[in-house]
Amino acid sequence: MRLPLFIAAVALTSACQPVSTAEYDSNALARASADAHKAIDAINVRYQRFVAENMPDSVAALFMEDGVMMPPNAPAVTGRAAIRDYLANGPTPEGTTVTFTAIDVQAVGPMAVERGSYVFAMPAMGPSPAMAIHGKYLVHWRDVDGTWLQASTSWSDDAPWTPPAGP
Amino acid sequence: MRLPLFIAAVALTSACQPVSTAEYDSNALARASADAHKAIDAINVRYQRFVAENMPDSVAALFMEDGVMMPPNAPAVTGRAAIRDYLANGPTPEGTTVTFTAIDVQAVGPMAVERGSYVFAMPAMGPSPAMAIHGKYLVHWRDVDGTWLQASTSWSDDAPWTPPAGP
Repeated sequence: MRLPLFIAAVALTSACQPVSTAEYDSNALARASADAHKAIDAINVRYQRFVAENMPDSVAALFMEDGVMMPPNAPAVTGRAAIRDYLANGPTPEGTTVTFTAIDVQAVGPMAVERGSYVFAMPAMGPSPAMAIHGKYLVHWRDVDGTWLQASTSWSDDAPWTPPAGP
Repeated sequence: MRLPLFIAAVALTSACQPVSTAEYDSNALARASADAHKAIDAINVRYQRFVAENMPDSVAALFMEDGVMMPPNAPAVTGRAAIRDYLANGPTPEGTTVTFTAIDVQAVGPMAVERGSYVFAMPAMGPSPAMAIHGKYLVHWRDVDGTWLQASTSWSDDAPWTPPAGP
């Protein structure tokens, strides 16, 4: 009995490094971040399609139930239902598309942060030509039962923009 | 010898839950988040003082060496030196103060995300009365050798704002 127990104790000791070292070492964090980056890139492709196809329900479903969207020049919008309504009321002109570029994704366990840049492409409207609006964003993602969802998202344009004057 | 080893093995077994369960359970995350919230509140008090006393060096030192500040209507500002220069060039009128309110802080290991609201209080300037600008922000914090530093920060006002016309 003594040898097996001793082996068991040694095995447990070596398998059981302190969490703070085992889980948070730079290799493990880099791996987790690379995995999250890949998953988030794929979600962003869907996000872009949902915007292009004017599907506010589907965009809202990319957020947590109590997720918070933080658009510039408007108060924060809290919760999926409110986000859907906000998007359905057309904060951007119809026909707008968006392209996200995730510059940096860092993940630790069930939490990730994505920093990126965006381009909104707005169609010509009356006297206004088509235009591209560049900006940057920060997203707090949470892994909820195996799916990355947006907990909160903040963004802003790179330059001041005023809506084109009406016809 | 057998009983102590048996006790040691049992002790190790119970101390050594899988990392994914032990470290990411909701109690542990709530504790880590509460601790981070307290630490970040204290940093924000210093941040507010640095703004009020016009100390761009000290504000920049609250960021990581390669931290990214993402102000509205301006491109992202990358790195402590660039952040200091950006702030030194006076993006807000002299005498401006800021108040941060951390609404929600979530932390996992060395990473935290703070979501909050701010009020910029701008002094009267010539014909313009004093005014308060309300907005919301998202900060990605990293624990660097025991100090929480800003990795990236995005914010935007709650309403459109145009600078007052000159005299």
